[in-house]
Amino acid sequence: MSGIAMGCTRICARFFEYDTPKIVHIRSFKVGILYRFVQLVIIAYIIGVVMVYKKGYQEFDNVESTVTSKVKGVVMTNNSMLNSTGNDVRVWDTADYVVPPQENGAFFVTTNYIMTPDQEQGICPEQGATCTSDADCPAKSQSANGIRNGTCNTTTNTCNIYAWCPVETDMEPSVPMLQGTETFTVLIKNQIIFPKFGVRRRNILDSFATNNTYLSGCHYDPVTDPYCPIFRLGDIVRLAGENYTELAVKGAVMGFVIQWDCNLDLAVEKCRPKYSFRRIDNRDDVTAKGWNFRYANYWNVPGNSTTTIQKRTLIKAFGIRFIFYVYGTAGKFNFVPMATNLGAGLALLGLSVIVCDMILLYCTKKREFYHENKFVMVKDDDALLVEDSVKSNYSYRDFNHSDA
Amino acid sequence: MSGIAMGCTRICARFFEYDTPKIVHIRSFKVGILYRFVQLVIIAYIIGVVMVYKKGYQEFDNVESTVTSKVKGVVMTNNSMLNSTGNDVRVWDTADYVVPPQENGAFFVTTNYIMTPDQEQGICPEQGATCTSDADCPAKSQSANGIRNGTCNTTTNTCNIYAWCPVETDMEPSVPMLQGTETFTVLIKNQIIFPKFGVRRRNILDSFATNNTYLSGCHYDPVTDPYCPIFRLGDIVRLAGENYTELAVKGAVMGFVIQWDCNLDLAVEKCRPKYSFRRIDNRDDVTAKGWNFRYANYWNVPGNSTTTIQKRTLIKAFGIRFIFYVYGTAGKFNFVPMATNLGAGLALLGLSVIVCDMILLYCTKKREFYHENKFVMVKDDDALLVEDSVKSNYSYRDFNHSDA
Amino acid sequence: MSGIAMGCTRICARFFEYDTPKIVHIRSFKVGILYRFVQLVIIAYIIGVVMVYKKGYQEFDNVESTVTSKVKGVVMTNNSMLNSTGNDVRVWDTADYVVPPQENGAFFVTTNYIMTPDQEQGICPEQGATCTSDADCPAKSQSANGIRNGTCNTTTNTCNIYAWCPVETDMEPSVPMLQGTETFTVLIKNQIIFPKFGVRRRNILDSFATNNTYLSGCHYDPVTDPYCPIFRLGDIVRLAGENYTELAVKGAVMGFVIQWDCNLDLAVEKCRPKYSFRRIDNRDDVTAKGWNFRYANYWNVPGNSTTTIQKRTLIKAFGIRFIFYVYGTAGKFNFVPMATNLGAGLALLGLSVIVCDMILLYCTKKREFYHENKFVMVKDDDALLVEDSVKSNYSYRDFNHSDA
Repeated sequence: MSGIAMGCTRICARFFEYDTPKIVHIRSFKVGILYRFVQLVIIAYIIGVVMVYKKGYQEFDNVESTVTSKVKGVVMTNNSMLNSTGNDVRVWDTADYVVPPQENGAFFVTTNYIMTPDQEQGICPEQGATCTSDADCPAKSQSANGIRNGTCNTTTNTCNIYAWCPVETDMEPSVPMLQGTETFTVLIKNQIIFPKFGVRRRNILDSFATNNTYLSGCHYDPVTDPYCPIFRLGDIVRLAGENYTELAVKGAVMGFVIQWDCNLDLAVEKCRPKYSFRRIDNRDDVTAKGWNFRYANYWNVPGNSTTTIQKRTLIKAFGIRFIFYVYGTAGKFNFVPMATNLGAGLALLGLSVIVCDMILLYCTKKREFYHENKFVMVKDDDALLVEDSVKSNYSYRDFNHSDA
Repeated sequence: MSGIAMGCTRICARFFEYDTPKIVHIRSFKVGILYRFVQLVIIAYIIGVVMVYKKGYQEFDNVESTVTSKVKGVVMTNNSMLNSTGNDVRVWDTADYVVPPQENGAFFVTTNYIMTPDQEQGICPEQGATCTSDADCPAKSQSANGIRNGTCNTTTNTCNIYAWCPVETDMEPSVPMLQGTETFTVLIKNQIIFPKFGVRRRNILDSFATNNTYLSGCHYDPVTDPYCPIFRLGDIVRLAGENYTELAVKGAVMGFVIQWDCNLDLAVEKCRPKYSFRRIDNRDDVTAKGWNFRYANYWNVPGNSTTTIQKRTLIKAFGIRFIFYVYGTAGKFNFVPMATNLGAGLALLGLSVIVCDMILLYCTKKREFYHENKFVMVKDDDALLVEDSVKSNYSYRDFNHSDA
Repeated sequence: MSGIAMGCTRICARFFEYDTPKIVHIRSFKVGILYRFVQLVIIAYIIGVVMVYKKGYQEFDNVESTVTSKVKGVVMTNNSMLNSTGNDVRVWDTADYVVPPQENGAFFVTTNYIMTPDQEQGICPEQGATCTSDADCPAKSQSANGIRNGTCNTTTNTCNIYAWCPVETDMEPSVPMLQGTETFTVLIKNQIIFPKFGVRRRNILDSFATNNTYLSGCHYDPVTDPYCPIFRLGDIVRLAGENYTELAVKGAVMGFVIQWDCNLDLAVEKCRPKYSFRRIDNRDDVTAKGWNFRYANYWNVPGNSTTTIQKRTLIKAFGIRFIFYVYGTAGKFNFVPMATNLGAGLALLGLSVIVCDMILLYCTKKREFYHENKFVMVKDDDALLVEDSVKSNYSYRDFNHSDA
């Protein structure tokens, strides 16, 4: 046999070997019961918590989502009586009360407003802070609506300001100017995707998508119509535990939560949205309570000569801002997380031996018996010399006197 | 030697000990082959799947992103012929067709519209639903565009409503009013950051950033110009597999996906965006198909006496809403996940011993031989007494008769 | 004893057994030191890195957030001197400079602008590109602002275009038209939730929420007022290391980062926001530097006969776009991740035995002594026959001659 072949054979021989730990198998009622109990707890934890409860056998992915919304409804403003001539009647439709007309992931519905029509740039008395002489109105100082020109207006006893005149009368109406906005409906279209799994779903279920009759007539109800994509604003606020009329006065920010929790190991049709609603802004805010903002419509009118004068209608809009939150996780069986979790679980099982060994070797009467059986004592020649009364019983295999 | 010093020495002696499991080393062709095969499968899984495929040696971070967009292009509306006088010609520029002028993470381009100019509040007949007498028009009931005043208009045979008059004629044009919007270009600026690694990238590559000539002339093409940040709207829609003219009539919602998948163990220059496009809204929707919304421009005109009358131009805009989705993960070598994955992998390796032991001890002819070699049988005095015919061969070390 | 009872007893007997690996306990100074050192490194890693630094004992959750903002401040435009008559003075308030009036997760403040009032549809010479004859102006070709009608305007030597006339003079002012926008303040309201833990926080601390005096007077300062929710725009830009006046000319995109890193094992009051700011757009951009966009206000004026003419005021707005980024993670003690990390850690501890065994069995003089003690050599009858000079010393327990 040549040297190379022999070397190869030796390597091959090494390959067909099997190492298995030598096990001390102890028949003992007490120890056995302890061992099985610890094992049971760990296995119950691995199966019950890691695998079943936390779905450790699944790979997870978060939802990616698009929400579009469309509000419908017409109301009349409060400040006029419905009369046959139509004077003083003002109807508000979607283009009037949804500002801006589209937003990414949110929509706003005006419920109350202060309108200041036909403002133009000029000098006029400010609202609020009183003055008695020009000294109270330092020139170029800034007020809420404009910049003081240094004079005190003797009629109103307030400073004159450069501003859009006349300035807004910031008297908030105590009832919402738009009555009946709670009957507005909003159609929500939510398309989602779980990119890792390539699964797409939408909130309008396939069974409804072809059924225009159902979709055009239904209204969301958590019990009777949980999958209808049309929501009454009043319902949303009520389900969030709030009072619509109260919110409508000062405005509010509402969260429109769409939850997609899907187990993709089941039928994909079971992957359905769950809606919930909550108020986002704080009821007890002391600064800037509620939700409002100002915007204006601008136009020009012919001026005295070649120039034109810019005019605007200022609107302070109070209303409810609905913000969409789409959460969701999908889980699907995958070998990698399962193996990782099992591996970590197996390692934990090792704990049961550690625990029992501790008790066996340190806390039982027969600890010397067990120690002797579990351990092969080997002493190297550089071992520290110890007068070890406890272990003097154990017979060490000593290197110097080894039978090797 | 004092007691304290002795105690210390003993503790020190305990410290310089080494515990290693006693191993039964079996030379066997069959068992060896099985053992190595199971080991191989597990190692291949750890290296191949966990480490290489799932990059288990890396720490991951998700992208945080900002996208801004700027649309360019001018078109004329369809409803007029190009003639030298310019009458009836209407040119649409960016300020006209991008509504609202800026959005966070999205932009909208009008492709079709219904314009109802010079509306004012009043009473006028509604569109659609016919009536024969006032009884068909209950007062204060809500119609699509306004609120009924209780009378039936004898000319149009529809109910009279309080509304912005004249009401919109909801006849959708069957061809897009804005012709040529597919030639519009949009410049996309996408800045990203992987916060955990502090790595920042942008979609305009550094090599292009200083090359204004390339940037001002290029158009994105998945093959020839995959990193050009200027996109033709028509290309986007085409690459999503849709027909632009079809979308332009009713509007649509398009996803503009920017994918950053970066291996930061490689050169950071290789961390580049990948663009893809998909239609978000459903082609087969029965309710509110496509994408449209209404907005209005408001101004006041002098009224009969001291008051002014508010007028508005209502626009129902159909168009394509592009929503940005920036996904991405960066991976970088990190010891912690590597160690965690290796640890779980090592624990899995323990499986190979478990599997082989099972077979060796229960399924082979020589199971008694192996059993005897693997196990040291110890019997405590509280062990259940069993007439164990199978194992009667094994010599138990009995506590009562132990040589301890 | 019946067969069934006996079977049961035997199964029960199997249950009360305990398997513990037989351990070779080696007393050796050198090996002990190596073993303890490797163990120490691994334990230090598990405790120090996995548990303490990476908080491996906690479950984590990402923040979900809502941000609303409200800008306050009034300025006058630069193009006029403050004079007592108010002519040419233009005051800008929130409704003027915040466009659009509300955005989801962002806000924009105009700092500079080019206003082109009273545009109407018509034919007028374009800006820029010169022409000498009609041949230079191909009909229907598109220019920056309109569409050429095929004629060259002999006065301006530029092509005539169908456009909103007069076209915008794109001469960017070199100083911001709105002076003093850096004194504007913005009130930020940020409500967050860690959904997994059900913990809600907001950036307005509870201790401040009832203290209107503090809130109405404070301004954010990273040192003295780190929790004041009112920010001066100038401070934001300064803290991001930028020059406000520079940004105000061309516009910019700023990131307004709110960081919530909460250890929910501590008092929930310690879960507080940390603000930071950074510039998002690139200072050295060659295309579309800064941030600007065009929008327009539309109105109609009476035309020659029954029709009306649409007019608009075009505004090219330069300004600073603030985008909110709310990041954050909350950690809370949870048994599952702790057990998973401990399990993986325990498995890693196995490495210390592997490392020491390697050295002991292959790299020490006494390797045969250790080998003999660690291994029980068993040879099956299908083992490859090897003339193993090294291991010939070891006494194999041979199946054929086994004492079983």
